Amino acid sequence: MTKIRFLPFEVTVEAREGETVLHAAMRAGVHINASCGGAGVCNKCRVFVEEGQVIGESLPEGGYKACTLIPETDLVIRVPVESHLDRRALLRAPKRLASSWIEAAERARAVDIEPAVRKFFLELPPPDLSDNIPDLRRLKRGLKEILGQEPEAEWSLLKRLPYVLREKDFKVTASLYDHPERRIPVILNIEAGDTAQNHLAVAVDIGTTTLCAELIDLNSGQILAETSDYNPQISYGEDVISRIEFARREKGLEILSQKVRERISGLIEELCHKAGVETSKISLVSLAGNSVMTHLFLGLEPRFLREDPYVPVAAFYPPVPAAELGLPGASGAVVEFAPCVASYVGGDIVAGVVAAGFFEEDPLTLFIDIGTNGEIVVGNKDFLACAACSAGPAFEGGGIKYGMRATVGAIEAVHIDYETFEPMILTIGGKKPKGICGSGIIALMANLFLSGLVDRSGKYRRDLDHPRLREGRDGWEYVLVWGEDSASGEDIVFTEADIDNLMRAKGAMFAGYQTLLESVGLSVEMVERVILAGNFGSYLDLEQAITIGLLPDLPRDRFYFIGNSSLRGARLSALSIKAREKMVAVARMMTHFELSAHPGYMDYYMSALFLPHTNLDLFPSVKERLEGGK
Amino acid sequence: MTKIRFLPFEVTVEAREGETVLHAAMRAGVHINASCGGAGVCNKCRVFVEEGQVIGESLPEGGYKACTLIPETDLVIRVPVESHLDRRALLRAPKRLASSWIEAAERARAVDIEPAVRKFFLELPPPDLSDNIPDLRRLKRGLKEILGQEPEAEWSLLKRLPYVLREKDFKVTASLYDHPERRIPVILNIEAGDTAQNHLAVAVDIGTTTLCAELIDLNSGQILAETSDYNPQISYGEDVISRIEFARREKGLEILSQKVRERISGLIEELCHKAGVETSKISLVSLAGNSVMTHLFLGLEPRFLREDPYVPVAAFYPPVPAAELGLPGASGAVVEFAPCVASYVGGDIVAGVVAAGFFEEDPLTLFIDIGTNGEIVVGNKDFLACAACSAGPAFEGGGIKYGMRATVGAIEAVHIDYETFEPMILTIGGKKPKGICGSGIIALMANLFLSGLVDRSGKYRRDLDHPRLREGRDGWEYVLVWGEDSASGEDIVFTEADIDNLMRAKGAMFAGYQTLLESVGLSVEMVERVILAGNFGSYLDLEQAITIGLLPDLPRDRFYFIGNSSLRGARLSALSIKAREKMVAVARMMTHFELSAHPGYMDYYMSALFLPHTNLDLFPSVKERLEGGK
Ligand code: FES
Ligand SMILES: [Mg+2]
Ligand SMILES: [Mg+2]
Repeated sequence: MTKIRFLPFEVTVEAREGETVLHAAMRAGVHINASCGGAGVCNKCRVFVEEGQVIGESLPEGGYKACTLIPETDLVIRVPVESHLDRRALLRAPKRLASSWIEAAERARAVDIEPAVRKFFLELPPPDLSDNIPDLRRLKRGLKEILGQEPEAEWSLLKRLPYVLREKDFKVTASLYDHPERRIPVILNIEAGDTAQNHLAVAVDIGTTTLCAELIDLNSGQILAETSDYNPQISYGEDVISRIEFARREKGLEILSQKVRERISGLIEELCHKAGVETSKISLVSLAGNSVMTHLFLGLEPRFLREDPYVPVAAFYPPVPAAELGLPGASGAVVEFAPCVASYVGGDIVAGVVAAGFFEEDPLTLFIDIGTNGEIVVGNKDFLACAACSAGPAFEGGGIKYGMRATVGAIEAVHIDYETFEPMILTIGGKKPKGICGSGIIALMANLFLSGLVDRSGKYRRDLDHPRLREGRDGWEYVLVWGEDSASGEDIVFTEADIDNLMRAKGAMFAGYQTLLESVGLSVEMVERVILAGNFGSYLDLEQAITIGLLPDLPRDRFYFIGNSSLRGARLSALSIKAREKMVAVARMMTHFELSAHPGYMDYYMSALFLPHTNLDLFPSVKERLEGGK
Repeated sequence: MTKIRFLPFEVTVEAREGETVLHAAMRAGVHINASCGGAGVCNKCRVFVEEGQVIGESLPEGGYKACTLIPETDLVIRVPVESHLDRRALLRAPKRLASSWIEAAERARAVDIEPAVRKFFLELPPPDLSDNIPDLRRLKRGLKEILGQEPEAEWSLLKRLPYVLREKDFKVTASLYDHPERRIPVILNIEAGDTAQNHLAVAVDIGTTTLCAELIDLNSGQILAETSDYNPQISYGEDVISRIEFARREKGLEILSQKVRERISGLIEELCHKAGVETSKISLVSLAGNSVMTHLFLGLEPRFLREDPYVPVAAFYPPVPAAELGLPGASGAVVEFAPCVASYVGGDIVAGVVAAGFFEEDPLTLFIDIGTNGEIVVGNKDFLACAACSAGPAFEGGGIKYGMRATVGAIEAVHIDYETFEPMILTIGGKKPKGICGSGIIALMANLFLSGLVDRSGKYRRDLDHPRLREGRDGWEYVLVWGEDSASGEDIVFTEADIDNLMRAKGAMFAGYQTLLESVGLSVEMVERVILAGNFGSYLDLEQAITIGLLPDLPRDRFYFIGNSSLRGARLSALSIKAREKMVAVARMMTHFELSAHPGYMDYYMSALFLPHTNLDLFPSVKERLEGGK
């Protein structure tokens, strides 16, 4: 691991594998002007290598482009004056405490692998005239010796049974399924010979935007491969509402259902290809998704989810044969679904809560999944309360003039020099910037606020004469990227209307925490642990999110990033019937609160439409920084 | 009801609706020469009407053709000398005692109709914001109030659920299925409004030759319609062995399976058409068939049924959704199968035993289903033993020179005048004779024997000079129909080789009773009741069957004809889960004996290759008649 020392700040950071000096600087809070997001075309990210070996592009006037520079040894890097001007650029790096608590908790839980599908190798005695019982009886008799009871069989198994039994002289491996609602296990599959070592499952998080999938070894509990892709339903509607609309069209529901199933089938094939295994070894597919995603996947009518009184078709879904859903897998492979709580609190949250495990622990925990449909859970081992927050699409770039989804060319990190008001940006993939994604929007907002360019009500300073601050066609705006550096050639700006939209989104979330906590007689300060779930949470800068009032201003060591907890929960459920039972228990235990029905919600919401909040005492660390900065 | 008095015999018989005088005469044991089987072309069946009104064809020389004569009033009929010559023609009519015991037993059993599928009408409260639980929860909550427990649901139901619930404002009828292996019932179907009155099942006997089906009202227990047809698999093989052979061909199994399912689908459509109901009201299809038929219906590999050590794929078959088998019915309708005991003792026998009910009673009962694969059950409430008899196809006309299946043109009844040796025959459908079916063969054999044309070893009298008795190309034979009266123009004869085949068939059956009874430490004389099951049994003349040694010579009032007991059992199982449970209990309770494995079987068989048997003391009534006749 190489170290980079930045001069003149005397900040040292450990470089990550393959990371550029520019990225390391952003992480360390060292400001370097970088207008093209790391695409290597603006030539503003000049730095000088004072010590050490590097690979990268040098500039004709001397020095190197920081965005191209990869350390080969420990380095000492000098950031020239034109590339920085702010000593206060040194922001604290976000604390991502997942490694300690979450991983430990998961390790603890993962001890007993006891999947719903188990494989048993049987050496059955071949039949003769003195023992010519039917093939099925022979199989059941053999299994009874192991299970203590006779399992159930379905007729599809019977078709293959006589051939498979005789293929390796009545030596077979049987897959037994513990159906959640049945007294006795079901024989899903039999294979000739001993195949007990080939025993796989797939866990999938069906996100509105992204599908994430993992291939799991059910013997070892190991993840053999991971992959993800966009949810192909995006082509028919960006958010759940527009998909519900599309589903009302002729064949609309069928199309949405088929598209997502096909894509998930493709991901499963891909996982197996990566791991060098056959799809026919997959016995179980464990899915978690929000209520709309689960409905659409199963082809269930979604419209009543969004029509008053917001009724799902089902919250607990029966297991479905993979073949009936067109998914690859072993003969008899089964698909299970994380149960939902309500129309807007789905299986992804239930799976996430099980993955986080706080429903079995003492500390009062706030579990947050930020997104267009933000979900909040509060509770501990004694109770669980949940609510859905309609934050709007701002966190996914929606309703923001140059907002975009987190794809290549999206500005994902922003720093603004507090003296020059010049930005430093990083784009996904190091391409010329096309727009700003959610985490970039929050970083930009926090920087605009802390640099004083925007006041607490979300308005730009009218008194400042700066080329980047101007009155445009849509009102006042800050130019984040000049046209010459952007992908399209247009200036990328952030308008006061964008700020309004973002404040409404973060205000809805914060009012949600307050309302939900009040509903159970608690308040924000009492929260002992905050768990940030979801893809968005993973890219969130904790300080920035607190700065703008999206997250409560609690001691930083109470925050944990759990990543894709929905996927994690789906995996746990595949690995253990206890986890599957916990999902049911959590879904049953969770009390759902309809925030809009709470009389106090509107007041909380209005008060949250400030930076960070009307009541600055709710944000003591932000208050302190603002006062210190003055 | 009109009466017919036959002169000069002074025999009076009640004519049945639409029955000809010729048929009534055969039934009453009155011999009338009838060479064309009732086709109206031989003109030998002349009779004179002495009193009463008739419709029919008169003959130019006076009198009427008996085969065309239908009584309009009570009649006195004189049979002229040339049309009869034998006073001993007066045979006792067979006692068909089914009406008393079997019907009474069935009435007793049918008291509680408790089908595996039950329908419940529910008036659910429509959802509002204070009660917006998922649709499925609402349905289950409503059902729990009735059932005391929450039923299981499958995902196929979920697709329709939201629409059906809202169609009649949350008033729905749910169909609940008691799965034989599960703890909690399954919701098969829901329908809008109150449809509990439309609740149907179909019972089917899948015979190797014939399919018989009934439409049953599950509320009243009534049979709404009946129908039957040939098993279309006949085109691919007459008997089970040739079908198993055909199944080994490319796609052979698939073809056999599909053909029989399609035909049964057609029969179900036909039943519903007859009864004026929709197939969508059928919740349950109850099937009974022998092991090969059940395997072929389900598409299960049949070859190991006939290969040593004779192993079925399964004996207890799981219920299968009707839709998966291509059968019509309600959404979610389910198909159940009578369990089998062994490769050659199938669900038809198990269903038959349940229908007969003797496994719950004291008397030692012999249950016989005569056919190519004859099945024998012996037992009472304390034990059940069964065996399969490979009698060969003689009873279905196979291996007999002019043998044929019981279709139009088949000679089904025969009487031979003991003095003139002239035959009286009746054909099915009153058409010119084409050949002889099973019941005709037995009647012919009994008559040839009793008339002295054939001796106890099955040889024709060599010393008799009679035009009908001759040495033909295939050895000695009796001409039953002259070519001028037959459909083909050829003589229809019965050869000594035919007699040999028939003796082997009846010998196998009789040796079967003896061996099976001996296997459980009993003997034929101890049998307190004989139940004749199956289609063939229904057309059998008891006296004739005893005469040739096919049935044991026990007091006639111990014999009962139960008809298609397989169909009857399938119907009982559809009507009552208790009957379904009894089928399982009977199949478990039955001990199967492999006759060929019994050391005494061969001796018994060899001794039975006489008329009626080597040991005449086993047939006291036949012995008495033979001695009386001499
Ligand atoms: S050239 Fe390096 S950031 Fe633009
Ligand atoms: Mg999600
Ligand atoms: Mg039969």
